[in-house]
Amino acid sequence: MTIPDLPITPGLLAALRKISTSTLTTQLFKRGLANVFIQGARPLKTGQRMAGPAFTLRYIPAREDLDGIDVFRDPNHPQRAAVEQIPAGAVLVMDCRGDVSVASAGSILATRLQVRGVAGIVTDGGLRDAAGIARLAMPAWCAGPSAPTNLIRHHALDLNAPIGCGGVAVYPGDIMVGDDDGVVCIPAHLAHEVARDGAEQECFEDFVLEQVANGAGIIGLYPPTAPETRARFEAWRLARSAQ
Amino acid sequence: MTIPDLPITPGLLAALRKISTSTLTTQLFKRGLANVFIQGARPLKTGQRMAGPAFTLRYIPAREDLDGIDVFRDPNHPQRAAVEQIPAGAVLVMDCRGDVSVASAGSILATRLQVRGVAGIVTDGGLRDAAGIARLAMPAWCAGPSAPTNLIRHHALDLNAPIGCGGVAVYPGDIMVGDDDGVVCIPAHLAHEVARDGAEQECFEDFVLEQVANGAGIIGLYPPTAPETRARFEAWRLARSAQ
Amino acid sequence: MTIPDLPITPGLLAALRKISTSTLTTQLFKRGLANVFIQGARPLKTGQRMAGPAFTLRYIPAREDLDGIDVFRDPNHPQRAAVEQIPAGAVLVMDCRGDVSVASAGSILATRLQVRGVAGIVTDGGLRDAAGIARLAMPAWCAGPSAPTNLIRHHALDLNAPIGCGGVAVYPGDIMVGDDDGVVCIPAHLAHEVARDGAEQECFEDFVLEQVANGAGIIGLYPPTAPETRARFEAWRLARSAQ
Amino acid sequence: MTIPDLPITPGLLAALRKISTSTLTTQLFKRGLANVFIQGARPLKTGQRMAGPAFTLRYIPAREDLDGIDVFRDPNHPQRAAVEQIPAGAVLVMDCRGDVSVASAGSILATRLQVRGVAGIVTDGGLRDAAGIARLAMPAWCAGPSAPTNLIRHHALDLNAPIGCGGVAVYPGDIMVGDDDGVVCIPAHLAHEVARDGAEQECFEDFVLEQVANGAGIIGLYPPTAPETRARFEAWRLARSAQ
Amino acid sequence: MTIPDLPITPGLLAALRKISTSTLTTQLFKRGLANVFIQGARPLKTGQRMAGPAFTLRYIPAREDLDGIDVFRDPNHPQRAAVEQIPAGAVLVMDCRGDVSVASAGSILATRLQVRGVAGIVTDGGLRDAAGIARLAMPAWCAGPSAPTNLIRHHALDLNAPIGCGGVAVYPGDIMVGDDDGVVCIPAHLAHEVARDGAEQECFEDFVLEQVANGAGIIGLYPPTAPETRARFEAWRLARSAQ
Amino acid sequence: MTIPDLPITPGLLAALRKISTSTLTTQLFKRGLANVFIQGARPLKTGQRMAGPAFTLRYIPAREDLDGIDVFRDPNHPQRAAVEQIPAGAVLVMDCRGDVSVASAGSILATRLQVRGVAGIVTDGGLRDAAGIARLAMPAWCAGPSAPTNLIRHHALDLNAPIGCGGVAVYPGDIMVGDDDGVVCIPAHLAHEVARDGAEQECFEDFVLEQVANGAGIIGLYPPTAPETRARFEAWRLARSAQ
Repeated sequence: MTIPDLPITPGLLAALRKISTSTLTTQLFKRGLANVFIQGARPLKTGQRMAGPAFTLRYIPAREDLDGIDVFRDPNHPQRAAVEQIPAGAVLVMDCRGDVSVASAGSILATRLQVRGVAGIVTDGGLRDAAGIARLAMPAWCAGPSAPTNLIRHHALDLNAPIGCGGVAVYPGDIMVGDDDGVVCIPAHLAHEVARDGAEQECFEDFVLEQVANGAGIIGLYPPTAPETRARFEAWRLARSAQ
Repeated sequence: MTIPDLPITPGLLAALRKISTSTLTTQLFKRGLANVFIQGARPLKTGQRMAGPAFTLRYIPAREDLDGIDVFRDPNHPQRAAVEQIPAGAVLVMDCRGDVSVASAGSILATRLQVRGVAGIVTDGGLRDAAGIARLAMPAWCAGPSAPTNLIRHHALDLNAPIGCGGVAVYPGDIMVGDDDGVVCIPAHLAHEVARDGAEQECFEDFVLEQVANGAGIIGLYPPTAPETRARFEAWRLARSAQ
Repeated sequence: MTIPDLPITPGLLAALRKISTSTLTTQLFKRGLANVFIQGARPLKTGQRMAGPAFTLRYIPAREDLDGIDVFRDPNHPQRAAVEQIPAGAVLVMDCRGDVSVASAGSILATRLQVRGVAGIVTDGGLRDAAGIARLAMPAWCAGPSAPTNLIRHHALDLNAPIGCGGVAVYPGDIMVGDDDGVVCIPAHLAHEVARDGAEQECFEDFVLEQVANGAGIIGLYPPTAPETRARFEAWRLARSAQ
Repeated sequence: MTIPDLPITPGLLAALRKISTSTLTTQLFKRGLANVFIQGARPLKTGQRMAGPAFTLRYIPAREDLDGIDVFRDPNHPQRAAVEQIPAGAVLVMDCRGDVSVASAGSILATRLQVRGVAGIVTDGGLRDAAGIARLAMPAWCAGPSAPTNLIRHHALDLNAPIGCGGVAVYPGDIMVGDDDGVVCIPAHLAHEVARDGAEQECFEDFVLEQVANGAGIIGLYPPTAPETRARFEAWRLARSAQ
Repeated sequence: MTIPDLPITPGLLAALRKISTSTLTTQLFKRGLANVFIQGARPLKTGQRMAGPAFTLRYIPAREDLDGIDVFRDPNHPQRAAVEQIPAGAVLVMDCRGDVSVASAGSILATRLQVRGVAGIVTDGGLRDAAGIARLAMPAWCAGPSAPTNLIRHHALDLNAPIGCGGVAVYPGDIMVGDDDGVVCIPAHLAHEVARDGAEQECFEDFVLEQVANGAGIIGLYPPTAPETRARFEAWRLARSAQ
Repeated sequence: MTIPDLPITPGLLAALRKISTSTLTTQLFKRGLANVFIQGARPLKTGQRMAGPAFTLRYIPAREDLDGIDVFRDPNHPQRAAVEQIPAGAVLVMDCRGDVSVASAGSILATRLQVRGVAGIVTDGGLRDAAGIARLAMPAWCAGPSAPTNLIRHHALDLNAPIGCGGVAVYPGDIMVGDDDGVVCIPAHLAHEVARDGAEQECFEDFVLEQVANGAGIIGLYPPTAPETRARFEAWRLARSAQ
């Protein structure tokens, strides 16, 4: 694995936020990474975008003698610690082993995360008070609304360890990008090149979509195997940038 | 099991209708009941609340020689009988063994239920004409829209017997409460204390949410382990009630 | 199997488009066909209707040495060929083996399909850029939004062969009808009689719904086992047609 | 449904015990019954046959305040009552909603059932002490070994009510037949004709298998569409019965 | 894809039959193929090996008006045609969409396949009369015993088309190799090199296993990163071949 | 949680090895622990018992750029390190997120574990060369045989951290006990009392089983609610110990 030599800047995140998860998964597939889409995590509402480095919380199965309601009185309880320690701009990613029968967080914690400047929530478990969370400006993706407290099935264990979420490996610092389709996990060392090539791909697809909407056929245009397609794209791009 | 010595009054149901299912599942978890949330039952539309005693309908798998289209000509067919016999204010809860491949009811029966004053529908199977049901004032929770008639997979058998629904035991008379997260089943003998303590919990959480929205941290506040939290809450509550 | 002796006309499709999938599945159940509803395919948005003959695309599992990103450069790649060859008015039905972990199409192809006059998309896999597809006038039903490219899991193989989709046999030319509940596959040779009897059933159910909304009970009315129900329906129908 | 006018005699059960479940499911399919095979119930050991009328036990989900370890002190607890009330020769069929995470019975109860002359156990849940049960002469079919007590997930409720088991409707008195493939549920009113025609089918298939083992092709033989096949079968049968 | 320039000889198949599926999946993984193991297909009995080219049969979902019991009277019915047309030495691979609720074949057809010299059966569906098939010399892998006739869920459609089986792409002529772990599908063009390198890997692993059984540690030995391991292996191999 | 003040001695483990998992899960249920049975882990062969403290290995999902075949050349690779570091007498427990599509270990590593004196293997994933592992004296429980290398789906990450396995929380040092039904995880601080009371329970159940085999009914005997049962048991026990 190449060590990323470029920092994760606000500009990079802003660029990634504009690129769709379908484009990003294609860029990663071109680099040999086929399993980067958090399976089963759906947005609580449509029309939102998110990009930020992963800050992870790992749950293991609960055990009745360890996970009573009083555990939250511990100021160091990992779920509560996660909410207070996650840096502004980061994304809270939770490993719930895909279990949607209980919640992994609710609207009070989500509100606190928003106040602290967190970029979003991603979980392969449930969220409670899901309608309340959906009313926040901070976006959230989950496997579904689920009212029961996490203590019934989950024991919060680790902060910022590598986890699995929705069948995908998530390492702390990986860049999580979310849109209406769901969430993609971009390994940190690939974020810059994926952002660069993803923006290029989206520009070309804007061109394609405009052509198709105007009646063009797919063959030779998408992908641009016809010799003239590239030239027409460059002309279109020049014209657009001149506006 | 303590025999409930307090009746299920309209006032109790009105109180429960204001309490979220996340609060109610926490109250029940505090009393040792961890499996009370109907798994997989989602509201057909958002923004609705429901509370009422369960009236149950049990389906077993259909058998081709018993479940032809003509069975509905029987005026005592249990599905149709359920619709006419369920008391006003009750909730129709159906055990479909979690099978969403067919419907458990449609918009005509749902309309009849609304006319009869029924509080809502809960099923771990499908609903057909789901958009039509969603237009009613009476709310419904199900495992998903599904067009095929129930006869293809289900044989309506029992009225008002204990059932399983979404993995939860539902006894006739248990109090079903629903919101955007889903539906909780409150054993009848616990309804009063859960309503009382749930209202108290929600009041405290309103305080917490306001504090958090204004920038307060979670630790010491939620749960209120810091000595001053309780005092500040009581002051906040006094001020609010004085308004 | 009776050979259909009546052509699939625009009038027939217009008639089917007005009939709900719940009515159509009941009509097919009366004819002995119980497995005609595409399980798990949900509309990307509500309020749409679709009717058209099936044009099928079969995917088998992908293999890394056959399904790299360059396969789309082949002008005869079956997915792209499907998009250009499907006739106007037809419905593109894709067999994804129920695998929602990747997409089966995205918004560029969907836009092309709309431009070409295609009636809709039905897949038991995912769709990428699902929000973009939902903004089109052409409706689509799928197992959920999913960003990754189809190449990761799917190899496009056959055009217009019989397939399975959502557990249902779909033969090219079968009539696919979709609404908010989902999609039903009507064998072509039954389309005319199902349209005729389905329209009749819906007319009667309009009557029933009106009666029920006005306070009538179900027994004797639905189904119309009370002797007077039929007469009252005919009177109602006459009055309505006279308006 | 025709009322069975012939009693379920030991001779009938002995005849059914010799017929394979694959033959019996085919006979029932010929009569329009496609869903009669208990899905997921596997024999604890191979080489056993069973036939007997169903005596059912229904479990619903457990609830912590009702299903503590002390419930078995109640002499009328339905699980224990089932074991003492089931008639000799009957089959105990349990509805566990397909949940194999806990047991539905163990070796002490199974031993008691054997002593009482019960024909066998069928459950779509687990069995504990499964190796001990497998050592009994009485056969058992289940979804898998599972050590935890049934109280953790199951509340025993009903004796001898219609149930679902492995996705199949089982009415008390239906004839359960088991072999190495699994268990079929024969509606009581069809038991005689299915036994008669199943024996005939098996005799023919013995002939076919002998022919095939000796090199005959399938076409024309199985099914016997070649004119000479029937004649050759009758000759074979005559010869065999003459031995 | 490279065109295989070496024929699939009996010698190649004999070599592959000696190599375990775990070795073969590793060899294919080294060549970039990660999805080659037929998920969910288990051997009917232990201790068997199989290698042969795939001859495929594709099922789609059944439809009641097309798949009655009489379809087998058609001498060209694809399931029966498959049994008579598959070449000696080939493996019958069936695409059942992973549906184990019914059978995909039974003991009569399996016996016919054995008589015809077929190398084995692989299905991601069920097999009926599974104990009878297990008694044959010809091995079979399936998702489980299942008594009901295939007609209930399956419509036999295609012979020798590319299919999916257990989530894996199987092209006619691919080499299927089976052992106690299950079945691997080797693309035909890789069969020779995989056989060569797999034999080499197994020889080395025999050496490793002997060393480990005699007390050697794993590190440096497996994989052979310690400089002396390779030399010791070559000496061991020389000694063994000298015996 | 009470700190265990008694060491885990060979005598304790020997005692636990004699107690069935069904008895142990009941003892833990009496103490409020309902979720201690590793769901889905089956023994590779019957007739084995195991008891030992858990040594854990955690896998997260693999990522193509991190989990190539060369990772095993690293002498500190966690899977290989686990095999060399686990103490004699311990049980290797692996968290595979329930994914059986690939192996979590094979026969070479299993042989090394046996040589090192390890008590057994428990995984909620697959095992490759499963027949070879089954021939070892050291027992193993898994979700099924599976040939593909773990690298395809798993990235070995942590040694001896708390994990989930088969839906159960496993903390390093918890006592894993296995038999033909499966594996139970006993929290270390409860091992002594569970061993003591479990042995007592098994002794009583031996008595009950003998009574039942001799014709006694269940009611009053199991549980021993009849006044005389306890006395008869004590007499039986005295007589047996006098032998």
